[in-house]
Amino acid sequence: MLNPADSGFLSRLAAELPDGRLTSAEARHLTEPRGRYPGQPGPVALPRSTEEVATIIRACAAARVGVVPWGGGTGLVAGQVMPEGPLPLLLSLEKMNRLRGVFPSENTMLVEAGMILADIHAAALVADRLFPLSLASEGSARIGGNLSTNAGGTAVLRYGNARDLCLGLEAVLPDGSIFHGLKRLRKDNTGYDLRGLLIGAEGTLGVITAASLKLMPRPAANGTALLAVASPAAALELLGLAQSRLAGLVSGFELIHRSGLDFLAETMPQVRQPFADPPEWLVLIDIGLPQALDPAEALEALFLAGHEAGLVSDGLVAQSEAQRAEFWTIRESIPEANRLVGAVASHDISLPLSEVPRFIAEAGAALAGMADWRINCFGHLGDGNLHYNLYPARGRKRGDYDALRAAGTRLVHDMVDAMGGSVSAEHGIGRLKVAELERYGDPAKLAAMRAIKAALDPHGIMNPGAVLR
Amino acid sequence: MLNPADSGFLSRLAAELPDGRLTSAEARHLTEPRGRYPGQPGPVALPRSTEEVATIIRACAAARVGVVPWGGGTGLVAGQVMPEGPLPLLLSLEKMNRLRGVFPSENTMLVEAGMILADIHAAALVADRLFPLSLASEGSARIGGNLSTNAGGTAVLRYGNARDLCLGLEAVLPDGSIFHGLKRLRKDNTGYDLRGLLIGAEGTLGVITAASLKLMPRPAANGTALLAVASPAAALELLGLAQSRLAGLVSGFELIHRSGLDFLAETMPQVRQPFADPPEWLVLIDIGLPQALDPAEALEALFLAGHEAGLVSDGLVAQSEAQRAEFWTIRESIPEANRLVGAVASHDISLPLSEVPRFIAEAGAALAGMADWRINCFGHLGDGNLHYNLYPARGRKRGDYDALRAAGTRLVHDMVDAMGGSVSAEHGIGRLKVAELERYGDPAKLAAMRAIKAALDPHGIMNPGAVLR
Repeated sequence: MLNPADSGFLSRLAAELPDGRLTSAEARHLTEPRGRYPGQPGPVALPRSTEEVATIIRACAAARVGVVPWGGGTGLVAGQVMPEGPLPLLLSLEKMNRLRGVFPSENTMLVEAGMILADIHAAALVADRLFPLSLASEGSARIGGNLSTNAGGTAVLRYGNARDLCLGLEAVLPDGSIFHGLKRLRKDNTGYDLRGLLIGAEGTLGVITAASLKLMPRPAANGTALLAVASPAAALELLGLAQSRLAGLVSGFELIHRSGLDFLAETMPQVRQPFADPPEWLVLIDIGLPQALDPAEALEALFLAGHEAGLVSDGLVAQSEAQRAEFWTIRESIPEANRLVGAVASHDISLPLSEVPRFIAEAGAALAGMADWRINCFGHLGDGNLHYNLYPARGRKRGDYDALRAAGTRLVHDMVDAMGGSVSAEHGIGRLKVAELERYGDPAKLAAMRAIKAALDPHGIMNPGAVLR
Repeated sequence: MLNPADSGFLSRLAAELPDGRLTSAEARHLTEPRGRYPGQPGPVALPRSTEEVATIIRACAAARVGVVPWGGGTGLVAGQVMPEGPLPLLLSLEKMNRLRGVFPSENTMLVEAGMILADIHAAALVADRLFPLSLASEGSARIGGNLSTNAGGTAVLRYGNARDLCLGLEAVLPDGSIFHGLKRLRKDNTGYDLRGLLIGAEGTLGVITAASLKLMPRPAANGTALLAVASPAAALELLGLAQSRLAGLVSGFELIHRSGLDFLAETMPQVRQPFADPPEWLVLIDIGLPQALDPAEALEALFLAGHEAGLVSDGLVAQSEAQRAEFWTIRESIPEANRLVGAVASHDISLPLSEVPRFIAEAGAALAGMADWRINCFGHLGDGNLHYNLYPARGRKRGDYDALRAAGTRLVHDMVDAMGGSVSAEHGIGRLKVAELERYGDPAKLAAMRAIKAALDPHGIMNPGAVLR
């Protein structure tokens, strides 16, 4: 059993740390974006070095006090707040936000866990490189949290998830020992992949304090188009066509349903609608090309080929960077429009690509038989990752659907699972999806996870209640 | 303590399996490529299904009998042979070699662990796709072994290591339970990355029985050039130039030293030498481009740019697929020429890219001060992975250097470690490098590895003595 982070514990810990490292959690530390899981008011530690993190974790291990790591607070599954149980110590990495080094000739960069993702983008750009992890919350999310949750986003198709973009880690393990694994190596087969295990463990196996990141050469030119497609199946066929023409240089392939455009028109009329007559399905395609190729020409040629194949009915190819930004604004405003409409239930799912069209058809039909909700299905189609959300019918309220919410989610998740998909594609498990993991997780994998957790964190101090009960 | 796989154990196990699954190991099962670690003659199991593998592992766990998984037997660190200790059961996956499915529209493929890598390449090609893992032993290596050792090879620069090319696994864990993780998903954040942990664990945490692999779109056209460069530093600058011009489409960037060409001339005169006057340093660059770009033109333009920048003095751009193959033959014949010359010591190392030139200079100088050996330094420069091997001076024999071998390796590995490199870049630890891992491994990582091993394999039956003592 854990003990609370009480005043006795805090004063003993304070004596081991420089002044000012322990304070009271602010509202931002206790609130997650969906507002459903309120953190308990209590202490927060603000270490400024890896050694200080180690001191804190050693003290917590000795006193059996829970630790909840906190990055930018943008996680969507309540991994960063602990609403119940013995009062934990929040461990914010926000003061450990230094850029430790950029190595352009290696395409690598060393960053501390508290560095904000957008600042990492900027630092890469200064070195004429790209750090491609790209997500809506990049202005406040911190890389330690991105790694702990194996964040995804819009460029996974070409560049991979957070795990794929990290070469090495420095971390403090649950016994307070420091894992010095900040290697800047593309190949290193010296033992188990502790890096990969800590990434995506959501702070339950240790605290990431710094990372060695992969940088990418910047494409000579980028291009973006919005293409109206006949169906999700046509969208996928178009993706295959684009990849084979462009040798895999498609970096984003986002699906937008007319519902998303309707929600934008309803709640954010300032966002310019791309088509006078909104198509049922739209894809945003983003490409990054080598010198000597013109992205707009390549996209126009793709449009023609897609049109000839009966896949694409209409389209807009960005003719400038400003127009590219405008197209992306449409896609990126949809989550905010969704928020303004107010979801009954939202789902971060992934499917084998070839199952996506069947899922959209069958889930839509089954849900329509259950209630008169509206569905907004959008997301990272290129990765098979859909945000599949349910909204009240026009004129009705969220509260009208309270009795239906759980059944809607069960239908969606059961169908995803039956089709070989995932009930958490990019957001993780946190505290929100612990029961879903227990329901859908492979029993052998769950048993292995529990054994690993018990082996590395025998007292269960790291992010108690997240991922595993 | 483990028990031997004696006749009593084998007859009890045979009763649980269909006929013909247990036999005596053949010479090929007991011999590793370098001939240094002879396996003990004994039994081999040849299961034909995952259920049969589970039956075998359950029996071994119950009887405390060691299991040594065997794929294609091509590993270079003796992970696949157990020369001492209680007689183990060899578990060969060679009969589990089915292609379970190809999903071209998803760029995925399901294969059993015993499928030979070259057969996977061929199956991908039938679907007009590329499975990019490419290594010298691909004609006999099996994918289960490639994954268990996180194999590297010549295309890691663009496509990653084996771990990066695998979306999901089916595996039998040390208690005989089956991990059903054959997901065909690009995004799946449901718990710890057991897939990534089993990959590279060299059979010490379970047996991989099948894998879900990533396929890639095939480039519209490929090109290859051999470029004489002024130095390793110039080679790296050229790589940066190529990547920025080509948006990261360099798939291979191999370093060749004049020693390698000399060894070829000495032992394999049938391999045509590319240059009448062999340069000291040569790179082989391989690129794969989208439609509308001509690889030979792109490489000629790169040559001119490199020449103008003072990086490249001479070069040959392949004008046909036959010539591409010829250039690759030069690179791929070097390991055989090395074998014919006979190494005193060989090293599979990696370095942060920016440290490579300093390492080559300083290691070369230090080794020259130690003895009159010849150095052949070649390999996957784009990944910072060098095969850095020591050979007898002309006219002398390997045996003359017996007293120097250990000191040479110590010097190389100490220097690699001091520069933040790895003493096993792509071959793994196996039994050959257990002491090196103990010497250079991060203590916190080693402790975590031991805790994970004890948690998942409490009786230590899986590949006893490999990776961890």
